[in-house]
Amino acid sequence: MIIVMEPKAKDESIKQVINTIEQFGLQTNLSKGDQTTIIGVIGDKTKLSDANLELIDGVEKIVPITESYKLSNKKFHPEPSVIQVGNTTIGGTDLSIMSGPCAIESEEQLLATAHAIKKAGATILRGGAYKPRTSPYSFQGLEVEGLQFMAKAREETGLPVVCEVTSLAAVETAVKYVDMLQIGARNMQNFYLLKEAGKTNLPVLLKRGLSATIDEWLNAAEYIMSEGNPNVILCERGIRTFETATRNTLDLSAIPVIKEKSHLPIIIDPSHATGVRDYVLPLSKAAIAAGADGLMIEVHPNPAKALSDGPQSLTFETFESVCQELKPYAELSGKKINA
Amino acid sequence: MIIVMEPKAKDESIKQVINTIEQFGLQTNLSKGDQTTIIGVIGDKTKLSDANLELIDGVEKIVPITESYKLSNKKFHPEPSVIQVGNTTIGGTDLSIMSGPCAIESEEQLLATAHAIKKAGATILRGGAYKPRTSPYSFQGLEVEGLQFMAKAREETGLPVVCEVTSLAAVETAVKYVDMLQIGARNMQNFYLLKEAGKTNLPVLLKRGLSATIDEWLNAAEYIMSEGNPNVILCERGIRTFETATRNTLDLSAIPVIKEKSHLPIIIDPSHATGVRDYVLPLSKAAIAAGADGLMIEVHPNPAKALSDGPQSLTFETFESVCQELKPYAELSGKKINA
Amino acid sequence: MIIVMEPKAKDESIKQVINTIEQFGLQTNLSKGDQTTIIGVIGDKTKLSDANLELIDGVEKIVPITESYKLSNKKFHPEPSVIQVGNTTIGGTDLSIMSGPCAIESEEQLLATAHAIKKAGATILRGGAYKPRTSPYSFQGLEVEGLQFMAKAREETGLPVVCEVTSLAAVETAVKYVDMLQIGARNMQNFYLLKEAGKTNLPVLLKRGLSATIDEWLNAAEYIMSEGNPNVILCERGIRTFETATRNTLDLSAIPVIKEKSHLPIIIDPSHATGVRDYVLPLSKAAIAAGADGLMIEVHPNPAKALSDGPQSLTFETFESVCQELKPYAELSGKKINA
Amino acid sequence: MIIVMEPKAKDESIKQVINTIEQFGLQTNLSKGDQTTIIGVIGDKTKLSDANLELIDGVEKIVPITESYKLSNKKFHPEPSVIQVGNTTIGGTDLSIMSGPCAIESEEQLLATAHAIKKAGATILRGGAYKPRTSPYSFQGLEVEGLQFMAKAREETGLPVVCEVTSLAAVETAVKYVDMLQIGARNMQNFYLLKEAGKTNLPVLLKRGLSATIDEWLNAAEYIMSEGNPNVILCERGIRTFETATRNTLDLSAIPVIKEKSHLPIIIDPSHATGVRDYVLPLSKAAIAAGADGLMIEVHPNPAKALSDGPQSLTFETFESVCQELKPYAELSGKKINA
Repeated sequence: MIIVMEPKAKDESIKQVINTIEQFGLQTNLSKGDQTTIIGVIGDKTKLSDANLELIDGVEKIVPITESYKLSNKKFHPEPSVIQVGNTTIGGTDLSIMSGPCAIESEEQLLATAHAIKKAGATILRGGAYKPRTSPYSFQGLEVEGLQFMAKAREETGLPVVCEVTSLAAVETAVKYVDMLQIGARNMQNFYLLKEAGKTNLPVLLKRGLSATIDEWLNAAEYIMSEGNPNVILCERGIRTFETATRNTLDLSAIPVIKEKSHLPIIIDPSHATGVRDYVLPLSKAAIAAGADGLMIEVHPNPAKALSDGPQSLTFETFESVCQELKPYAELSGKKINA
Repeated sequence: MIIVMEPKAKDESIKQVINTIEQFGLQTNLSKGDQTTIIGVIGDKTKLSDANLELIDGVEKIVPITESYKLSNKKFHPEPSVIQVGNTTIGGTDLSIMSGPCAIESEEQLLATAHAIKKAGATILRGGAYKPRTSPYSFQGLEVEGLQFMAKAREETGLPVVCEVTSLAAVETAVKYVDMLQIGARNMQNFYLLKEAGKTNLPVLLKRGLSATIDEWLNAAEYIMSEGNPNVILCERGIRTFETATRNTLDLSAIPVIKEKSHLPIIIDPSHATGVRDYVLPLSKAAIAAGADGLMIEVHPNPAKALSDGPQSLTFETFESVCQELKPYAELSGKKINA
Repeated sequence: MIIVMEPKAKDESIKQVINTIEQFGLQTNLSKGDQTTIIGVIGDKTKLSDANLELIDGVEKIVPITESYKLSNKKFHPEPSVIQVGNTTIGGTDLSIMSGPCAIESEEQLLATAHAIKKAGATILRGGAYKPRTSPYSFQGLEVEGLQFMAKAREETGLPVVCEVTSLAAVETAVKYVDMLQIGARNMQNFYLLKEAGKTNLPVLLKRGLSATIDEWLNAAEYIMSEGNPNVILCERGIRTFETATRNTLDLSAIPVIKEKSHLPIIIDPSHATGVRDYVLPLSKAAIAAGADGLMIEVHPNPAKALSDGPQSLTFETFESVCQELKPYAELSGKKINA
Repeated sequence: MIIVMEPKAKDESIKQVINTIEQFGLQTNLSKGDQTTIIGVIGDKTKLSDANLELIDGVEKIVPITESYKLSNKKFHPEPSVIQVGNTTIGGTDLSIMSGPCAIESEEQLLATAHAIKKAGATILRGGAYKPRTSPYSFQGLEVEGLQFMAKAREETGLPVVCEVTSLAAVETAVKYVDMLQIGARNMQNFYLLKEAGKTNLPVLLKRGLSATIDEWLNAAEYIMSEGNPNVILCERGIRTFETATRNTLDLSAIPVIKEKSHLPIIIDPSHATGVRDYVLPLSKAAIAAGADGLMIEVHPNPAKALSDGPQSLTFETFESVCQELKPYAELSGKKINA
């Protein structure tokens, strides 16, 4: 952390900054220039998080140099994490393919989908039992009944299952049925929910917020991890920009950035990112080529009748052919795929 | 709602769209052009929310024409709402000034602030007992103890009090102490929390999400209102853009837009929007001039020692002089101010 | 400028950075911490602009501390600039009101508008002779004929006139007819055009680019000023965000930011920013209250027949009443208005 | 195009809209609903571009249904365009690799680079002779001397060459030396320059603006094409968002969107998009996998001494190894690569 002083800062202001920092048990380094004086801070800057140095007379600004997240930081954990989810792993040499309907609508719909995606090569079944919808008048999910269908689907197919949770009550119920919890984009900074997910011993799939920076995303992971749960998987699902040709803008650069800054696995959701069925295949290929650890793809037995996000869902047939087309890209990128 | 068909859509596709719409109990209007055929939908479009017309062969796109929010919509409630909060109202001819510390730190800090802001002209005391912070290592709030200090501050000063709630547990506790609940920007689409706030009989101050459109914001209000609680106050606190000179970009255009689309009151938070103390006064004047129903301004007895957001907090003296400077702007805009 | 070294940077890398900086004639200040070593640069950092220090082994990042613009920087010119435009000034205690049609369509249209706005209180006539339009099939402007009408309007009304220029050819023609050149948002980083405008002795109204940061905007002003032309007026006209309820998002925070960083005057264009006639009045009041030096408002004798941007144009009657409503806000803010 | 009337629009307003449309020689289709009346327009809507229907009493909004660009639209030119550039083509089954320094610095630097990239597999040499730089105090390019070096590099290596042009003067000079003109991101809506480029008979590489929508980008291409030059190649180079971990956000979704809407080829520039050398390889792979027709990659003999954009430039060795790593991805995607 560096404190930049105003051009005309008085010596007593400089001294006050230095004293404040030293009171917090840290050392300083003073650099006086013609125009600008800067004060470097040496030691653990988290001690200063409440020091409000900006408010000392003569301080122009504070420039942070190091990240505030620790447990998710690659600097302190250089090896990539490989996370066990039921009978499969995410983050190693396997390419994870999470698939299923946006919303669980019925036992029949879910079981048919589970069998179809397993046959096509998916490794994890996804399905929404608690649906965050923009309008209160849209379908909101089957809740516990949906979770029971998920457990049944796992029993029949052997696929581990993941469900989004949107409240403490949902967490408490979901842990009885699922292999992984999902925190959705709209709840990425619902810090209360992050901590509750951190208290479970299930892995957590953490979607990036609609306009969250990568730094905030890793800090959100830190909330989960600081409760003692190291098993976080990041999921990029498109960020909000001015472009309207796609529902969101898929930020594939997040893959190399995360690989550089963190040891956590990252998977890509091209279905929500684009909102358009036909863009799922090219962007899935691209995600694999860029180094993603997995994909999350929406599939529905009859997209035209889906209660949520039909337009971006693939049919069983299309999903199977997508998996086949992805296979050589996965292999080229050194990842094993089930398809 | 209008369905636009592809240039080469077959007659049977057009028929299928029409049949689907009619099955949901609505009427259609067909318009065939040289290049484009469009089908208008006549009747209550919410019935079609799960129809997935996009997926019928030959459909190019769906163009929504009317808003999905009803209770917050001015079309169905042309008179502006005036909402009672403790002994004061928001949305009428009074200019509400909500003020107080970002985070409640101690009884002494809160009481001193409450007395100072009351004297300066504030009408509501704000203070955070549950703090959503980007990093888990920052101060997280005094929780119930903070709420108790708020109740005491109300007792001493007569000012109604508002606190942010971040979970069902916090809602259940807060209703015993406060006059208004606040849903913060990061929870604007925490639909579960919105519904819980809607089930209380307290007014709710709903902050706009970091990258929420005005349409989504009014839909979030709809979640609260559809639970039977009509008392929602909107609060614009800056949206996320590429600009870094301010913490966020304050969207004052939201004032006339909300006044046109909704009957709910709108207040402005220049402290969080800019993150810079010196910008609070000019943007508060601007907010009043643009027609805001109130302001939310952070004040701290000693900003240099604030545990949260010190750099944007005003001292007691500055706050008093800000209120004095705002007075003629309020009067010019036809609003009564206590200062 | 500060150079942050990687945690494991070798001593020889640190030496190489220091040597490189010193070769450019600057001094350094070394600060070694447990985790991070930083090197401060003392002296004129523009000398280092091509040094590519980032590429020396062991360098993690470069953190700029001071701005790259000089002539537009308030640090080196603390007094606000007051700029003469024809018989009026911008930036002092007068509130400038620039008004007129988006596009000049005919002599009759322009003269009628010029007389009407003068009567209402405008101080400068604006009108587009060279129109940058998204589609090549939209009306592109009357070019030199439009400029001639502008000159005639000035003759008849005494109002100074401003026109947008979009090429060197347009600059060369316009200087014969107008009192101020305008560089539009789409050309804010057309550096060639900025320099050509800088070579004239006319004041230049520089609109902010659609997604330009304030830093880039002041650097664009620097292009004009570094050619010897100190007379630049900044104009905020809305930035591009995800919000679609308004054409752009008007960034009124830019007013206090510019007032802090620069001595140049700043005016606000609520017509282009919102794209909606009814939002012009509330946002004009807000702009004045926030400290703007002027306004640019579109007026058209018959907006329903305007060849460009009709929906955001005011009629003569509305413009006159807007000016009357703005008058007390201007006076309250210490600005003289002609209305 | 659809005109949506306000709920309470009078019959005479509806008639006025219909009459206006019919006066422009088009037909209408009226659809009256309980709440909303809509009027569809049948025929060539460009005739209505100046009709300002929004301003007729009772009109709520205009909803465009079809795109305003024609020549770049796939609807009217279903086959993908293959564009000849010197001795190579862009848009067919070959993967174009354009490479070279951001700025041409000397004959020696350019020739060394040209030979190195040719050997590694590049098909086109890029290099900046006219550099648009944020600050006027940064290196601005060698101009005509740079173009002469480009011509010499072509002579020696046989590689076609592309240079950015920033003014009419630059266009007039560049056409004598280069095989393709480049319009940079900052000039994407410099419509005057687009038209001048359209009047040459050279192919034009059109970069997407910093915050341009895909629709605006195709309209910019339309400016070039409407002057009689059909040879436009689109280049995505990152858009501006709130994320700061990368210089811009590379929008790879633009590839499938462009492939759906237009017949023009699209290439990707990962160097400018990310600003980080290490992200070039993963995003180049991703671009190929998503269907890009080519790549533009910055290479410099000694990035540490580059006068522009050194941190994102590859060395000769790295570039050669990048090309080798891209080869199997190109082949898998059905593209021929020279490497």
